[in-house]
Order: sequence, then structure tokens, then C-alpha cells
Amino acid sequence: MARLVMKFGGTSVGSIERIRNVALKVKREVDAGHEVAVVVSAMSGETNRLVDLVSSISSMHDAREYDVVVSTGEQVTVGLLSIALQELGISARSWLGWQVPVRTNAIHGAARIEDIPCDEIIRRFAEGQVAVCAGFQGIGSDNRITTLGRGGSDTSAVALAAALKADQCDIYTDVDGVYTADPRIATKAAKLDKITYEEMLELASLGAKVLQTRSVEMAMKYRVKLQVLSSFEDLPGTFVVDEDDIVEHQVVSGVTYTRDEAKVTLQQVADKPGIAATVFGALADAHVNVDMIVQNVSENGHATDLTFTIGHKELPQAMKVLEKLRDKLDCKAIVPDPDVVKVSIVGMGMRSHAGVAQKMFSALAEKGINIQVISTSEIKVSVLLAEEYTELAVRTLHTAFGLDAA
Amino acid sequence: MARLVMKFGGTSVGSIERIRNVALKVKREVDAGHEVAVVVSAMSGETNRLVDLVSSISSMHDAREYDVVVSTGEQVTVGLLSIALQELGISARSWLGWQVPVRTNAIHGAARIEDIPCDEIIRRFAEGQVAVCAGFQGIGSDNRITTLGRGGSDTSAVALAAALKADQCDIYTDVDGVYTADPRIATKAAKLDKITYEEMLELASLGAKVLQTRSVEMAMKYRVKLQVLSSFEDLPGTFVVDEDDIVEHQVVSGVTYTRDEAKVTLQQVADKPGIAATVFGALADAHVNVDMIVQNVSENGHATDLTFTIGHKELPQAMKVLEKLRDKLDCKAIVPDPDVVKVSIVGMGMRSHAGVAQKMFSALAEKGINIQVISTSEIKVSVLLAEEYTELAVRTLHTAFGLDAA
Repeated sequence: MARLVMKFGGTSVGSIERIRNVALKVKREVDAGHEVAVVVSAMSGETNRLVDLVSSISSMHDAREYDVVVSTGEQVTVGLLSIALQELGISARSWLGWQVPVRTNAIHGAARIEDIPCDEIIRRFAEGQVAVCAGFQGIGSDNRITTLGRGGSDTSAVALAAALKADQCDIYTDVDGVYTADPRIATKAAKLDKITYEEMLELASLGAKVLQTRSVEMAMKYRVKLQVLSSFEDLPGTFVVDEDDIVEHQVVSGVTYTRDEAKVTLQQVADKPGIAATVFGALADAHVNVDMIVQNVSENGHATDLTFTIGHKELPQAMKVLEKLRDKLDCKAIVPDPDVVKVSIVGMGMRSHAGVAQKMFSALAEKGINIQVISTSEIKVSVLLAEEYTELAVRTLHTAFGLDAA
Repeated sequence: MARLVMKFGGTSVGSIERIRNVALKVKREVDAGHEVAVVVSAMSGETNRLVDLVSSISSMHDAREYDVVVSTGEQVTVGLLSIALQELGISARSWLGWQVPVRTNAIHGAARIEDIPCDEIIRRFAEGQVAVCAGFQGIGSDNRITTLGRGGSDTSAVALAAALKADQCDIYTDVDGVYTADPRIATKAAKLDKITYEEMLELASLGAKVLQTRSVEMAMKYRVKLQVLSSFEDLPGTFVVDEDDIVEHQVVSGVTYTRDEAKVTLQQVADKPGIAATVFGALADAHVNVDMIVQNVSENGHATDLTFTIGHKELPQAMKVLEKLRDKLDCKAIVPDPDVVKVSIVGMGMRSHAGVAQKMFSALAEKGINIQVISTSEIKVSVLLAEEYTELAVRTLHTAFGLDAA
């Protein structure tokens, strides 16, 4: 007997038929003797519908009232799934965020979970009852409904698994696991049986959309054994586990990419102290996050190029900030470039293997792909490229690091 | 300065535009210096959509989970209306049933309100905040969401008005008041300025759909001054008040009708003790409510006709029960008749005027309308007629009792 948390996203509960299918999956675990808590999202399309209603009343709405409205999506799903389970003869009841309670801070619309006292749910496990919990929502210190921000149901599931000391947290989704690369681009991509929290965290941050970054952070912190698997096919998925649970680490476990970045170059900016502080301070004040930065050595000791990347959506805002600084910067030109892609390789094995970055650069160079900016961490190397090279670069690196399926 | 409860039904909040219109009506009361609590229903169509979702999962669903799902309709409206009020510069916050709390018993789907502690709402009145409360919902003794049954938002509004000791409870709806008869049938029907609780209660029970019966009962019990008025036109409505607030009572205040009845006649049933007890006992056991009853005097001392009315929808169920009793009843035939209408006259003045019933019967007889069954109470007379006479009977009585507008 194990204690399981099963999480189903919006597409998995997108219709009455799919909710019935979810109930069957839950029944199988119950029949196997497991204690089960289920975490569900809103039916697909529902959260967008609710957000649109709020936006059509006001663009600058009270986040507390936004939470009241959008949290109804999950509320509907938990009721329907509980009824579907009861139809199969399973004892089940719904739990809303305020009922569990899933205690969060009071940052409405982007709340963080602080505590989940779940004695009552555990007591009911002993009576054979399944807990059907609303993802994405909680109750703030102000006794009002909070939401965790889009995609927060993954985080709800992991937090509940941690609170319940569950043996496993299964994230059911519309893909059947974590792949070595996006299979739509790299046709030879293979599904990983296992991946470490650290690798998954890098992949999630670097564009792999299979899990929400915060949920992986939380799983890592509380050592929750995660599995990502398909709602629709009956196949084992990918386990996200502790480093020690993987005997031999691949040098590179995955290749990922994101088009969500934009590049800005300040040409021939004066090479004097304080310029970087001026630029990045002003951007931070305008809530523009800067990702990669590169500053060339100045040729003549006077002027240099300063290049950095920011979120694609923040480019107009960033340009406005920079234009205002123009006089102070004394640069030749401010050149925006939205047509870039960040391609990354991630792998725990990198820590013990020299020359991984070099191998990456060579492989790209051989295909004539120019690298614009580089950034590295202990277990990843990211490069910024012209967007048109996305597919070629991902496939080249997938092959170069021996990830192609046989 | 007064303390007001304003209640808006589903059609009044049926679109973003209409929610904005409601916000303007609330603003006007706030600007006049009043303390305001607003009670709202789900946007029109929304409750039906939610009920359909539940029904498509299971016809025999857990009422607790039904309540979880359908209560989301009002939850959406309170959030949206609060935002709309804030857009107009009004301080407002939403209150869900469990937040107020609106304490009910645990009869899910048809809960009764037991207590509404509203100190916090009153405290916030003093700060100028409008309370936007979800109608139709509460929290049961089991700490789960309850609903009051369809149309329960009227009851929510009156109960809140009683708890807040409000000076007035305004029920905004899609008609502009209570009429002397259904204006679609009696073109000379006039809007009443005032009506007593007792009359309103009879009218509501007898088919006038403008207010939910339970809400009138509660208003009468707690002496809540009610007004029924239009959401869409800017006109005074009808006040539902204490008997003492009306100086001179009309003999008849209104003529109403309902097609929700069906008639059953047991022909030539044995005229012996215990037959009525057998018939109505069996129907009660099958949860069939009997309304009007008439038993003819037997001609030969042996057999008699027993006629009674029940809810239209319950006719098949009732016939099943009666067929099973057939041998025991020893009657010639069991004749169902769904094509009947109950037409009623209601008025406080009836108590002090003799001959009202007689005048009603004569007026109908003059038009050749045959009366099948009669039932009376202190302030109403109801007759059962063939359904085809509905319009003629209503118009005839409206004229006969001097209700036609000049």
C-alpha cells in the first residue's frame, strides 16, 4: 500500500468523458489498495473564459476579486470528479482550498503556499475515502481565496504530496513524459525514464513546458518523488528523482530551447565604471528581468558593445527605458533584436566531464551557426542564436551528445 | 441615511453590460449616503449550465458535490460586481456564503438559513464599504457549501436584511412590481403600490412568480420591508408591507392562476370509512402532495366520486400509486386530467366582506365557466377550471372585482 497524489491538468479533465476517464484511473489505484489524493485543474478553456470576464469589466482589477472569479474553474472540476468517482462506487469528497486548508500568503493572483494541515484528509484515507482537491487555489491570511498563478496546479499537487508525506506524486498530462528534446523538432528524441530534480529544474526554466518551475523546486526541496505521465495512454512516464537514484549520469540529458527571449545591443557605449549599473538598475526599476549579459572588451579603451537578453514581451518596455537613458549612456545605437532563440544543453554529468561546452560550440560551428551570447551554470550551457537556426541547432546537439534514439 | 439590501436576479446580471448597470444603481444609493449590501444570483443561464454538467455525470448525484459545482455561479457574479463597483470608485468586496458566514442546516440542495452573524459587514459599512454577497449559498454544519434550492437568492436577500436590521430590502427583477393579474393575460392589470405580506404569500404560492414563497414568509416573520422593482426601468415598484401600513384594504388585491396542477377523480369509490385515509396515506408515502380535495355526497349511500388535485409533474407517480390500490378501493375508474388551471382571488378585505366567493362563482357562471373544485382560506378563494378557460376567467374576475385600470 502506498500513498499517492495524482494530478490532472485542464486537457485531462476537459470534458465529461475525460473526467470519467480520470475517475477510472483513480479507481485503479484505489483498487490496488493505495491511499489517493487527486489534484485537478479547471476544465480546459475555463480559466481563460473566467479571466476574460474579469478583464472585460476592468483591466486594472482587484486581484482578490480576480481570485474569487477564476478559482471557480477548479471548484467545478472537483465537484464533477467526486461525483464521477462515486458513480464507480468509490468513496470520494471534494476539498476546496479553504477547506483543506491550503494556507498561502495574501499575494493574490500569485500566492505562495505556506502550510497544508491535512490531518483530516489522512484520517479519511483510513476510511477508504479519496480526497479530490482543487489545484491552483488556497486561502490567504486575510481569510479570502487566493490563487497561485497560471499553471499553479502542479505546485498544489507537489505541496500536497509533501504535506501528506506521499510516496509518489504523479503528474498526468497530455505528453507521456520528459523527452531528450522537443519531439516535434527532434524526431529522434527519446523519452527519459528518469531525470534528476536539478536537471528538470533547468529544463523547466529553459523552455520545456512539461512541468511548472516552482513545482519542481518544491519537489526538490521536500524530496517528493515525481512522475510525469500521459492521461490518455497507459504507459510509464518519466520519474523526477534524487541524484542518488540514478546510477550513471548522462553527460547531457536533454536539449531545450525557448523563443521567449529578445536581445538588445548598446553599440559603442562608453567603457567607464557605472554604465552597467545605470542600465540594469533602470531596467530593474521598470520590472524588466535581464537574463544573459555579455560585454565585449573595448578595442580602443573608450567604447564597447553591451549585449543582453530580456523577456520577449518586455522588449517595448525595455526600449522605452533605454531611450530615456540615451544621453547618459552616450552610445552610438540601441539595437533591439526579437528574432533570437536560446538553446540549452542540460545534464548532471557535465560536472564531471570537461569539454562539454567546447563540444557544443564546435558542433554548432560545423553547421555554420553563429553563437551570439553564452551563459553557463554547473549543469547547463545556454547559447543565444538567430531564431532561424532553432531546429538545426536542437537536432545537431541532440546527435552530437549521443541522445538520438536507436 | 438608511441601511439597504439590494438584490439582483440572474437576468439583471446576465451580461457584463448589465453588471455595470447594477453597479450604477448601487452607486446611486451609496452616493445618497446609504449603507448597502448587495445580493446577487448567477448570471442568467449559468446555473442551468452547471446543473447540466452535474446531471451529465450522474442522475443520482451527491447533493454536497452538486452544491460545490452550482454555487460557483454566484461566486463569479460577486467577484465581477465588486470589480465593477471599484471601477466606479466605490469601496466594495465580495462575500461568499462561507465567508459571511451564512449558516444553514446541512440539507444540501435545499438548505435553510439558520443564522447570519454579520458584525464584520456592519463594521465595514462604517468604513463606507459595500458588501457584495453571493445569494443562494451558505455553509452547513458540516463546513461544506450548501445551496438553498432554485430561486433561493430572494431568501438570501431577505435573511440578510433581517440579520442586518436593514431599513429596506429591494428585490430588483425583470418586472417592475406586483400586478393585480398577469399583464400578459389581463391587459388592464395595474401595478400595486403596496401589498401585505399575507397577500403576497398567497399570490406567490398560487402562481405569481415575482417572489419566492419562502422569502415572503421570512420577510413576514422578521417584518422586513420589501420592495419589488425593475432592474431596467427607473420606476418605483411594489412595497410588501405590514397590514397596518395599508389604510384601506381592497376586497380583492389580485387575481392569479397556476397551470402546475393536475386533477384525479376516483369514480364511484365505495363510500366507507378509511378510504380517504388509504388514498392520501399512500400518496403521502410516495411524496405526492395533494392540494385541493372534494368528495361528493353519495347518491345511494354506497358509492361516491373522490376528486383531488396534485402537482402536474407528479401525475405519473400518483397514477402508479393509485393503480396499485385499485383492488382495495373498489372504484369504477381512476380518471386523470392534466388539463386544468387553478384560478385564485386574493385580498385582505375578504375577511370583512361577505359574499366574495359567491360573487366569484356568479361571475364565472355568467361566462359559462364550470367550476370543478373549490378551496378557500381566510384571504383567498381558489377554483379549479378546465385549462382552456384560463384567460377568460382571469379577465372576468379582474373586471368583476373592480381591478381594471382606468
